[in-house]
Amino acid sequence: MARDRLIAGGAIWTLDPTVGVAEAIALRDGKVVTVGTNAEVRAALHADYEYIDLAGRSVVPGICDAHIHLLWSALLADQIDLQEVASFDHALEIIRQHAERLPADAWVLGSGWDHSLWQRDWPTASELDQVTGGRPAFITRKDLHSAWVNNAALNCANISKFSSDPDGGSIGRDATGEPNGMLFENGQLAVKACIPEPSAAQKETSIQAFIKRMHQRGITSIHVPEGPDCFAAVQTLYGRGALEMRILHHLRMDLLEHAVAMGLKSGLGDAWLRFGNLKIFSDGSLGSATAHMLEPFDNLPANAPHPYGIPMHDREDLFATIDRALANDISVIMHAIGDAANRTVLDAIEAALKANPESLQPSLGKGALAARVPNRIEHAQLLHPADIRRFGQLGVIASMQPIHATSDISVADRFWGQRAQSAYAWRSLQASGAILAFGSDAPVESWDPWAGIHAAVTRQRPDGSPDGGWYPEQRLSLEEALWAYTVGPAITSGEQAIKGSLGVGKLADLVILEEDLAQVAPQQLAKVQVAQTIIEGQTVWEG
Amino acid sequence: MARDRLIAGGAIWTLDPTVGVAEAIALRDGKVVTVGTNAEVRAALHADYEYIDLAGRSVVPGICDAHIHLLWSALLADQIDLQEVASFDHALEIIRQHAERLPADAWVLGSGWDHSLWQRDWPTASELDQVTGGRPAFITRKDLHSAWVNNAALNCANISKFSSDPDGGSIGRDATGEPNGMLFENGQLAVKACIPEPSAAQKETSIQAFIKRMHQRGITSIHVPEGPDCFAAVQTLYGRGALEMRILHHLRMDLLEHAVAMGLKSGLGDAWLRFGNLKIFSDGSLGSATAHMLEPFDNLPANAPHPYGIPMHDREDLFATIDRALANDISVIMHAIGDAANRTVLDAIEAALKANPESLQPSLGKGALAARVPNRIEHAQLLHPADIRRFGQLGVIASMQPIHATSDISVADRFWGQRAQSAYAWRSLQASGAILAFGSDAPVESWDPWAGIHAAVTRQRPDGSPDGGWYPEQRLSLEEALWAYTVGPAITSGEQAIKGSLGVGKLADLVILEEDLAQVAPQQLAKVQVAQTIIEGQTVWEG
Repeated sequence: MARDRLIAGGAIWTLDPTVGVAEAIALRDGKVVTVGTNAEVRAALHADYEYIDLAGRSVVPGICDAHIHLLWSALLADQIDLQEVASFDHALEIIRQHAERLPADAWVLGSGWDHSLWQRDWPTASELDQVTGGRPAFITRKDLHSAWVNNAALNCANISKFSSDPDGGSIGRDATGEPNGMLFENGQLAVKACIPEPSAAQKETSIQAFIKRMHQRGITSIHVPEGPDCFAAVQTLYGRGALEMRILHHLRMDLLEHAVAMGLKSGLGDAWLRFGNLKIFSDGSLGSATAHMLEPFDNLPANAPHPYGIPMHDREDLFATIDRALANDISVIMHAIGDAANRTVLDAIEAALKANPESLQPSLGKGALAARVPNRIEHAQLLHPADIRRFGQLGVIASMQPIHATSDISVADRFWGQRAQSAYAWRSLQASGAILAFGSDAPVESWDPWAGIHAAVTRQRPDGSPDGGWYPEQRLSLEEALWAYTVGPAITSGEQAIKGSLGVGKLADLVILEEDLAQVAPQQLAKVQVAQTIIEGQTVWEG
Repeated sequence: MARDRLIAGGAIWTLDPTVGVAEAIALRDGKVVTVGTNAEVRAALHADYEYIDLAGRSVVPGICDAHIHLLWSALLADQIDLQEVASFDHALEIIRQHAERLPADAWVLGSGWDHSLWQRDWPTASELDQVTGGRPAFITRKDLHSAWVNNAALNCANISKFSSDPDGGSIGRDATGEPNGMLFENGQLAVKACIPEPSAAQKETSIQAFIKRMHQRGITSIHVPEGPDCFAAVQTLYGRGALEMRILHHLRMDLLEHAVAMGLKSGLGDAWLRFGNLKIFSDGSLGSATAHMLEPFDNLPANAPHPYGIPMHDREDLFATIDRALANDISVIMHAIGDAANRTVLDAIEAALKANPESLQPSLGKGALAARVPNRIEHAQLLHPADIRRFGQLGVIASMQPIHATSDISVADRFWGQRAQSAYAWRSLQASGAILAFGSDAPVESWDPWAGIHAAVTRQRPDGSPDGGWYPEQRLSLEEALWAYTVGPAITSGEQAIKGSLGVGKLADLVILEEDLAQVAPQQLAKVQVAQTIIEGQTVWEG
């Protein structure tokens, strides 16, 4: 067995209410064996242990991102990111270095460039050819409305001077009519169709690498709403002993009947990998004005086609699907942005719980790993004030992404007006008895949990605007925000008995920060540095 | 936390080759914390512990039945068993007592009666009415070719004096032509169709009760080849904290594509409940002469329709299904009785392993719970001598049921003749490097593991015949037989790192026997008594 580890010399934020901030913590066999004062902890140690001196730094429980698109994020992370690259030569150099690491027949993929920063006209296929070593390349502009491709990519798609522009798109051309490497709108589709789906092995490799990145910011657990290829990949990694992240993996809606046919229920798995909930979209998004609203969006044009947004399902269908899931002990994870979407989903869960009273009694199984996984609503961005208390009453988790609030300030003010008072209503939800579970929704937003913690504590953008925070009465304290990234998600995966806080007997998943967290100004929270990430007592990353 | 437990004062058969038979064992937090000499173990204990004095009795690891039809056995165990009941009045009294415990609208179900023991004519519906309290009753004769029913059951099926006999069956009648309560052959079907399928809750209750029975014989783990209703039921029990048996649950063949669509792979789960292998029947049975043979059965009538038995699938289909499963990381559990069936299955697994080289490398995951679950053949009753070594070579588990050998002696001698030299070839398999995993196939045979251990060690029927044992060169020692009920099944579920033997750090699943096992004569092994069954350090049954 590995030696015991003693960590002391700084503040240990246990998030265990019976302990609070401790002086020392000891780890044994992957669990917290004692936590408390220096004297208490040393008394419980074996003679031979490893001492980690915090020297004034601090410790928090391992962080959980309760909503991250793992495979999508991982594949994107493997691509070139040209956001804010200010010179064309630098962009080419980034592309060259990336391409050199790829197999000879791989596609060079990327996004994020903005030629207005480069003070030049559109980039060209022949310029891209010079740095891609014969590989086809497809690199989207930051707005996704155009793409820069090379000649190998044009050849793959059989795009030549004789090609006509597709409907809704165009092919950039030089003075002679030859394609020049720019594709606009639907002009991109022919090349996109040539890009091969990554193999299962590539997906596994990408996920494994992305997990290592997450360790660098203190993430030890994630909840993943993705498809069967992602679920298969993480099982393969686990089967090889190469899964270094605790995962609750959800089920795509169209797969419900497969799970029912097999008799598979939410919660099967262990502390590394569990089968979670049925993912159902109930409405669209705020930015697209497709969130489902009780009253029309503000400031829409007079001829807006759907002033109340777009519910994704007939009410009856939605009720029936949720009932079908709960009747088969498959919990739901509901995407709901608008106040009408949230109300409808709460109504449907309430009805399904009444029709399936067994579902009302989630209970802890042996070792707490078989607990019924709770139902949850994702985003829950705009709530009618009357619906806030229903989360706690119905045992529905409010799974939210603080960074959405600060990214959305302008559009929320514009589309929701005064209603935004109960948007991203963390404080009101918490006060009403709801469990908060925080995450990122990456790659839609940054997956960095410290960016989320900054947003939760300040309700300010990274640049500090607006002064005093946006609807600051909904801000959380730092400890509350951390709770929603640790204890809250553990409750949400039905694992509060084994993780979330740093109580005795719980899994030794924890993060050593470079700072004394109590001394970090709220405005600096996004910049907190991680010194070491520990999962099950073992260091998985050290800075 | 629970107190430590020290067990000493008798022989502790650890089945851990580095320890052998120990003097003492200590349990802490559900695991073996030390095992060895009295001095070694006491040195490792906390001051406050519970002492269990064996007083000359012995301990073995928790027993696993690697092949038991859990739900089928559990539902049958809830029914009346009239086997060897020698008087009609006694039979009526058993039925009365059983019926009284049932809800008023439940069916009274049973089997096993033999009126030749009762020295009377067929029993009647009105006699049965007197003890069933208005409930419908359906009780099959021991040969299943006839059933005794009461008037409530006849009414359910609308069987009256005006009913005509169905094809292939008849309705027993009294002198006036009224149905008298006996139904022969297909005459049973109309009543059978009235018997309601047990509800999910009934299945859960039956399984829970049957698990308690299994504890009484020292069983702590089982491998279950059953359908989705059983899988759902055990997940529900686990979710309620009411699962007191470690289960590897297999997948019915027709459900393969559901698992593939979801990306579900063998091994998901934890130490209580894991998702196992795809169950495929490759042939029939010995008794029905439908096992698939390389050479014709001996002693068949000249006009026998299928002298080589019956393969259940075209060779190509079987190869394709096994390949499909292994390509998706779903291991297989193959029913194969005849030597041709076993050879075909070994050929198919060999081909699929070659086509899916990843499958060649089962590896242990974190905590060993994510190990690839090995492929396995069930029964493996008759093997061509050239195929024996292929089990070990291909990593295919030989999952066998010792009681089948002794139950089948006559029919194997008759149908297989000299070929029976390599039937139930435990010793030869073991010597060739195969992993043996033993079980019962209950309710086809008794689920009592001690009956199986008796058969494995003696190759004699319960009555001691034949003298010296049947092909006694294939007998196992008592320790080898125990290994195949403990370590072998743990390897078979991919969990050898956490259970099977009583090594340090393994799960504290163990059985205290009433006897000093070393002193039990082989002929008495079926009668070994269990004093206490302990799972994860907790006593689940005490005699």
